[in-house]
Amino acid sequence: MDTRKLLNDVKDGKISVDEALLSLKKEPFEDIGFAKVDLHRRTRQGTAEVIYGAGKSAERIVSIVGSMVRGGQEPVIITRIDKAKADELAKNYEISYNEEAAFATVGRLPDPDGAGTVVVATGGTSDIPVAEEAALTAEALGNKVIRMYDVGVAGIHRLMSHMEEIMDANVIIAIAGMEGALASVIGGLADCPVIAVPTSVGYGASFNGLSALLSMLNSCASGVSVVNIDNGFGAGYLASMINHGKK
Amino acid sequence: MDTRKLLNDVKDGKISVDEALLSLKKEPFEDIGFAKVDLHRRTRQGTAEVIYGAGKSAERIVSIVGSMVRGGQEPVIITRIDKAKADELAKNYEISYNEEAAFATVGRLPDPDGAGTVVVATGGTSDIPVAEEAALTAEALGNKVIRMYDVGVAGIHRLMSHMEEIMDANVIIAIAGMEGALASVIGGLADCPVIAVPTSVGYGASFNGLSALLSMLNSCASGVSVVNIDNGFGAGYLASMINHGKK
Amino acid sequence: MDTRKLLNDVKDGKISVDEALLSLKKEPFEDIGFAKVDLHRRTRQGTAEVIYGAGKSAERIVSIVGSMVRGGQEPVIITRIDKAKADELAKNYEISYNEEAAFATVGRLPDPDGAGTVVVATGGTSDIPVAEEAALTAEALGNKVIRMYDVGVAGIHRLMSHMEEIMDANVIIAIAGMEGALASVIGGLADCPVIAVPTSVGYGASFNGLSALLSMLNSCASGVSVVNIDNGFGAGYLASMINHGKK
Amino acid sequence: MDTRKLLNDVKDGKISVDEALLSLKKEPFEDIGFAKVDLHRRTRQGTAEVIYGAGKSAERIVSIVGSMVRGGQEPVIITRIDKAKADELAKNYEISYNEEAAFATVGRLPDPDGAGTVVVATGGTSDIPVAEEAALTAEALGNKVIRMYDVGVAGIHRLMSHMEEIMDANVIIAIAGMEGALASVIGGLADCPVIAVPTSVGYGASFNGLSALLSMLNSCASGVSVVNIDNGFGAGYLASMINHGKK
Amino acid sequence: MDTRKLLNDVKDGKISVDEALLSLKKEPFEDIGFAKVDLHRRTRQGTAEVIYGAGKSAERIVSIVGSMVRGGQEPVIITRIDKAKADELAKNYEISYNEEAAFATVGRLPDPDGAGTVVVATGGTSDIPVAEEAALTAEALGNKVIRMYDVGVAGIHRLMSHMEEIMDANVIIAIAGMEGALASVIGGLADCPVIAVPTSVGYGASFNGLSALLSMLNSCASGVSVVNIDNGFGAGYLASMINHGKK
Amino acid sequence: MDTRKLLNDVKDGKISVDEALLSLKKEPFEDIGFAKVDLHRRTRQGTAEVIYGAGKSAERIVSIVGSMVRGGQEPVIITRIDKAKADELAKNYEISYNEEAAFATVGRLPDPDGAGTVVVATGGTSDIPVAEEAALTAEALGNKVIRMYDVGVAGIHRLMSHMEEIMDANVIIAIAGMEGALASVIGGLADCPVIAVPTSVGYGASFNGLSALLSMLNSCASGVSVVNIDNGFGAGYLASMINHGKK
Amino acid sequence: MDTRKLLNDVKDGKISVDEALLSLKKEPFEDIGFAKVDLHRRTRQGTAEVIYGAGKSAERIVSIVGSMVRGGQEPVIITRIDKAKADELAKNYEISYNEEAAFATVGRLPDPDGAGTVVVATGGTSDIPVAEEAALTAEALGNKVIRMYDVGVAGIHRLMSHMEEIMDANVIIAIAGMEGALASVIGGLADCPVIAVPTSVGYGASFNGLSALLSMLNSCASGVSVVNIDNGFGAGYLASMINHGKK
Amino acid sequence: MDTRKLLNDVKDGKISVDEALLSLKKEPFEDIGFAKVDLHRRTRQGTAEVIYGAGKSAERIVSIVGSMVRGGQEPVIITRIDKAKADELAKNYEISYNEEAAFATVGRLPDPDGAGTVVVATGGTSDIPVAEEAALTAEALGNKVIRMYDVGVAGIHRLMSHMEEIMDANVIIAIAGMEGALASVIGGLADCPVIAVPTSVGYGASFNGLSALLSMLNSCASGVSVVNIDNGFGAGYLASMINHGKK
Repeated sequence: MDTRKLLNDVKDGKISVDEALLSLKKEPFEDIGFAKVDLHRRTRQGTAEVIYGAGKSAERIVSIVGSMVRGGQEPVIITRIDKAKADELAKNYEISYNEEAAFATVGRLPDPDGAGTVVVATGGTSDIPVAEEAALTAEALGNKVIRMYDVGVAGIHRLMSHMEEIMDANVIIAIAGMEGALASVIGGLADCPVIAVPTSVGYGASFNGLSALLSMLNSCASGVSVVNIDNGFGAGYLASMINHGKK
Repeated sequence: MDTRKLLNDVKDGKISVDEALLSLKKEPFEDIGFAKVDLHRRTRQGTAEVIYGAGKSAERIVSIVGSMVRGGQEPVIITRIDKAKADELAKNYEISYNEEAAFATVGRLPDPDGAGTVVVATGGTSDIPVAEEAALTAEALGNKVIRMYDVGVAGIHRLMSHMEEIMDANVIIAIAGMEGALASVIGGLADCPVIAVPTSVGYGASFNGLSALLSMLNSCASGVSVVNIDNGFGAGYLASMINHGKK
Repeated sequence: MDTRKLLNDVKDGKISVDEALLSLKKEPFEDIGFAKVDLHRRTRQGTAEVIYGAGKSAERIVSIVGSMVRGGQEPVIITRIDKAKADELAKNYEISYNEEAAFATVGRLPDPDGAGTVVVATGGTSDIPVAEEAALTAEALGNKVIRMYDVGVAGIHRLMSHMEEIMDANVIIAIAGMEGALASVIGGLADCPVIAVPTSVGYGASFNGLSALLSMLNSCASGVSVVNIDNGFGAGYLASMINHGKK
Repeated sequence: MDTRKLLNDVKDGKISVDEALLSLKKEPFEDIGFAKVDLHRRTRQGTAEVIYGAGKSAERIVSIVGSMVRGGQEPVIITRIDKAKADELAKNYEISYNEEAAFATVGRLPDPDGAGTVVVATGGTSDIPVAEEAALTAEALGNKVIRMYDVGVAGIHRLMSHMEEIMDANVIIAIAGMEGALASVIGGLADCPVIAVPTSVGYGASFNGLSALLSMLNSCASGVSVVNIDNGFGAGYLASMINHGKK
Repeated sequence: MDTRKLLNDVKDGKISVDEALLSLKKEPFEDIGFAKVDLHRRTRQGTAEVIYGAGKSAERIVSIVGSMVRGGQEPVIITRIDKAKADELAKNYEISYNEEAAFATVGRLPDPDGAGTVVVATGGTSDIPVAEEAALTAEALGNKVIRMYDVGVAGIHRLMSHMEEIMDANVIIAIAGMEGALASVIGGLADCPVIAVPTSVGYGASFNGLSALLSMLNSCASGVSVVNIDNGFGAGYLASMINHGKK
Repeated sequence: MDTRKLLNDVKDGKISVDEALLSLKKEPFEDIGFAKVDLHRRTRQGTAEVIYGAGKSAERIVSIVGSMVRGGQEPVIITRIDKAKADELAKNYEISYNEEAAFATVGRLPDPDGAGTVVVATGGTSDIPVAEEAALTAEALGNKVIRMYDVGVAGIHRLMSHMEEIMDANVIIAIAGMEGALASVIGGLADCPVIAVPTSVGYGASFNGLSALLSMLNSCASGVSVVNIDNGFGAGYLASMINHGKK
Repeated sequence: MDTRKLLNDVKDGKISVDEALLSLKKEPFEDIGFAKVDLHRRTRQGTAEVIYGAGKSAERIVSIVGSMVRGGQEPVIITRIDKAKADELAKNYEISYNEEAAFATVGRLPDPDGAGTVVVATGGTSDIPVAEEAALTAEALGNKVIRMYDVGVAGIHRLMSHMEEIMDANVIIAIAGMEGALASVIGGLADCPVIAVPTSVGYGASFNGLSALLSMLNSCASGVSVVNIDNGFGAGYLASMINHGKK
Repeated sequence: MDTRKLLNDVKDGKISVDEALLSLKKEPFEDIGFAKVDLHRRTRQGTAEVIYGAGKSAERIVSIVGSMVRGGQEPVIITRIDKAKADELAKNYEISYNEEAAFATVGRLPDPDGAGTVVVATGGTSDIPVAEEAALTAEALGNKVIRMYDVGVAGIHRLMSHMEEIMDANVIIAIAGMEGALASVIGGLADCPVIAVPTSVGYGASFNGLSALLSMLNSCASGVSVVNIDNGFGAGYLASMINHGKK
């Protein structure tokens, strides 16, 4: 909103004081009772609001999706949505659903239009659900994604055989639980930003991901930053932002 | 190194087996006894190795700088270098030094050549040393930096008065101690990546930065990632990487 | 109890030594075997004892409610009481029950008689159960409550559109999980006490509410104090105390 | 600022578009280089900004005090200001200084005008510095303060002998280190809000105040809320807010 | 075993070398495959080994009880034994079982023969299972126990009405969750050892008993020591030891 | 105080109402400004108040000692009092001082009158300062103490050579840092109460005594309870209480 | 792979450039979609890859086993595989399965060929599942194992009766939960490496094995090192490595 | 000691009962007042006791060294001994001293007699003091040591250039702070035991070595075990034990 223009319009009588007041005050969201759905987010920040499905009932998810579809916010992304809720949602909208990642979308996805590729790497096979959340998020936001799973540092030759993809990537998402060393090793090899995602994979002194989290925060490689434990979505979103650059 | 080309050269007799062997084996670093100075890093990863001055004696710093200057790795960046060590270094090389940030450089810095601006914001005035480390790093790596200090969320109008810079930024570094809320608020306003830097500013239940760190990792805003507590350098480096895009 | 008057009464023979002794010793609670129900609390502290339902069997809850009703302590508030126990209680007493907040009352609630309004704000929709516990508690204690849900700082315009309610409030309860920044931002805007309630909403590095708790304790805004994680009742009770002032 | 009035003035030509624009944008703080001094805070929130002296140089403190005095923000409160800095400040302004609490004020303090008394209680004698910060803050903000020191629960008769002051108080600040039980016991006796301040007094498993902090957060008494470890200022400020009620 | 006498017997030919060797080596326990049941413990330490039922199958419990009964170690105490296992045990032996405390005994219990009374106090009603484990243990070891439940410090008059029992006790077991202040207050009133038992009762920042544990370890009252969270048995056992004095 | 007798005296006119009132209210401590010195503690709890010297100025210590000496509370025990403060105290009173334990007493100590011996054992030589605090406390309270230093479990034969003292003891204080295993091993050997004192001796993952503290709380031996890290005084005091039994 | 030989072969035309390239690049693992099965590990590191069954579906386990059997990697070890998955696996391969340890093997196990014996000791009976994982692993890798269960330090005579086995062992695995003192005591007695395995056995302040973990890391005995909580496999594997020496 | 032989000697009158008694009881250490110096340790466990210098006065160190030299326990190793204490020791004995490692020896060191080489690797140059403690310990115990410093995973080519030493090693000590990934990467490459030593090198979220410690405990590579933070001595000692095998 251009405040100067608005004020000039008021001065010139083009719009009334009340209209201007309304315009200054209008809330860029729809209040649907239990939630305020942000309908200007795509305009303001480049992507629509994303629905975090955990802890929301199927009814509330359907209701928020409805508000967003009405507001022209497709495609709608829903993360952490289990099979039962997804089935419920599917009764109301045509959805695309990945059960392992608990990830759903409503509406046609964009074609890849980022600057390069987003590589999603995991230390082990148990990290795949988080990795898929990251990969599907990045794809839903218009990125070409290369999956590089089970390349943990305890068998470093597995990672080394992928040097080409690593060197070609525009952004790399490094996902690992346990000791989380993958981020440091990739960070030392790559020449692009590395987004580290600690996972809660492990037991005992992994303390539900704390070990990998601390590891990644202390990475001795430059260009590495960290998101929350198991936050595949956050990593995919940020990767897309970096891969698309400033609009 | 193009392995196929190398092998073809061997086959064609253009280079000897021993030369090829050497080339395959040559270590891209200079071993100066107590350290292995990485001299190919600029080629391999786009920026030269950076010297972390804390816990290194002035002698060792001078010695590593020497190795890098000899290897044509200027400008050399030295972080966490106190006044006494900087004075010692200045006896050997022409340096540029900022005491508050404990940050030094040797050699001419590049002109800004990034895609846009890097905004460095802090919650309070006590966060400035970390912010300066971030800002000076980004500048030394060829970025235009806008400083936006003391804009903490407890007086949100101070932040709001900078909406223009926030919306224009290519990357934002949000630096805060105590409750670390700055990153979330900026993350909710901006449409570019936000690099959050928790600081050890605070007392009591801030637990030396733990409070801000957890806050930032749990940011409900998308596009936010986190580096280590007080790691201004890491944030500046990553910001530069994002601002320059893939080379 | 006025000790001087009691002693004078003894001296004047108005009451016997035994009566005085009894009066000095009488325990202001009813011992019902497994619990000592405080029946003087309303007199002594202005509000009757509140029953914490978690971990108490339906039988015990009914028994304590009985003791309080007999002692004229209505309305009786029962928190953390699940549907099954509430159903059991409803067989014995006419109750008002809110399932989302797991909150029940027995007896007629008072009309609002506080000095002003109590605003209950939440960062997200998942914080609503805790918010309702706070709001219902405040209402049961005679306060006018304004609910302001889903106004988290990642979309600060949602909060800003409520500036009027914030500036008008007598007390504000700020409820948030994850990074808990809501309390600081509201604390910086409001001119009344802000009671911060961290919630266990979140995952990974939220560590079941620890992140929000530390955030709120470190709030850089003045006038903010904190209660236990998920303690909606405690916040509602304290808000009522502040809103009613010294009786 | 009344936006409607402003817009009407624009419409009526009473003020120019540029003036209105300026008014809408004018930042309510003075930017003195390293800090943004909030000069509208007294108007907006009822009390002027308070200077946190720790980690600020004497020069910067003098500079901020200057900005505030110029802005008519007296009395100015400076917390955590050690003797040396206070001496420096005293060269420029007439100050009142308490060394034990590291607390200074510039300008005439107001007469007590709160609704009742603020009681400041401590568990031991080592908690006195924090208690004095709380008490002096409350006094500087216009409250009558009653000090009740060394009344820890290990000798509960010491606390009991003060029942009258406890029952008469409008707000009580309960300050304790070690096991922090004072807040619960006072909370169970009083009928007014209790602000609990954990202190870092103790050793071993007190973990620098963590023990008292957790204790106070888990208080089984209602009406108790908690501020950061050693945060006497925050408690005094909040107590004043409660004691003065909504302006 | 008197080594000198044994050696003299060998010298005098009263026992053979092999017999002496056996006697020096004989293990004072019965090896029943998966466990080594200590049958000399009553002789060595005054009480028989106690069976910790959690994590042991009913079969193994029955087997260990059998070994102890055969070894004349009655009464046998089994703690943390759930209803199902107790039922299984009851098929083989005549047992006495308390379900709330998950506590069973096999064999006739001794009459009270301690020096005085053991008082078992709890802060709330939710602490009763732990308290009963403590009380039943003390009773099974020959102590007169006085139960004093729901006397938490938030209503200190409830505790005060029991001053007589407190002053008369030989040992007091103070059991509390949440802020665990009970131990300090009792410790300040009593003139006998106080054994503090933190419980996992609470939520949020009670962190499963950590809050009460730290509180109790930091008790400012003398004569207080602490056992593990929820360790009613350990407290009852130690109380009996103190109450019986050196045999 | 016999309340019935007091009331009868009032009724019979033996004492006036005012005298009775005074008697009911008289505070059993002397208020010396910054502290309330408990002068009835010896009567009430069997031992006089003990002065914790850390964090108190020499002046304050002298002042409290003065109040206690005037109140007939000798011998006075002062713990954690460094050499400089002890020297200051010695200018005013004849003191006995142990620098390693930072422990002082004023007045003649009692002869040992406990039921048996108190054994003070340490794992290593670095635990000796804490051990001396415990031993000197016990001696000052009238106990015969046997010191058994440097008997840590890594050389279990050192402990085994002291079996006689262990079996003869009435109470054992087991003091250890690092892994704190001493308490468990002694607890398994002895038939008397074992008071475990974790010390902050160690480095790295000892986390200033946390490791030993947790170890001791989890002791698989019965009859073991724990006091705060480095709390030699608390252990000595409790040992004396147990060794003297109920007065 | 001998790089010089390869290059000579290229030069001599013995192999083509493409073949050499392939050989330099060939990944020593089979990519089966969701995992990269390491088939050269036995050659490279002396033992084949081991399958961690937790969190892998029966289908994936069968698929990986298949890849390994095809690659001649028998015997295949699968850890943390529950009964249901083991049953599924047994439909496809002849397996040996231990339910308590959740441990399976496919293929004939080797005869013991280590230098000496591996002793596996536990503190209690609840540690046996972890101990069996360790023992079965060591046996599957060709070691003679001596089990020494339930020899915790609270009854040190039980351990002492096994001095012969301790002194004869080549490696000792000391497994304990709760206070974890077993490792230190054994470490002080033995003259061979001791591998300490903390277990999650315990409750309250054992914090799921943290207590035992810290204890073992702080062992005052030399020759002790630690693996992750409950990591019986890791201990058995390392023990085998030490017992077999360098191949 | 052969008990059977001793007893036969008693029977045959070869030694008196008193001599036998003495022999059974004789303590294998010298009690020098503040410490019990173990003089049989070399016989019992293969190496003499090692003196941990931190927290011991120079006098005490000299005294213990004296006892050991008198007992024929040379060479004597003293760790964590600063320059001043070493100077003091050098006045009494001929010592070899390394200041960076704070490591001293008295007496001639043995020639290397282990089975192979011990490799000591560090992630960075700041880890060298810990590495030297490990290397010097291993050398003092008769091992050939290869130092491989500054080979951290952020520049993995530095580590790769040492594959030969890694593959040839008998034991590898992997020392790293910050994210501690070195142990996992080496563990994945080597076919010998890897002893991981976390160091306190780092800042912020390294939490004084906690990050590296957790990382190493969670290593996904087999054959890795961990010692305490900064415990170079422990690693060197254990490496020597493994390298020498069972004597």
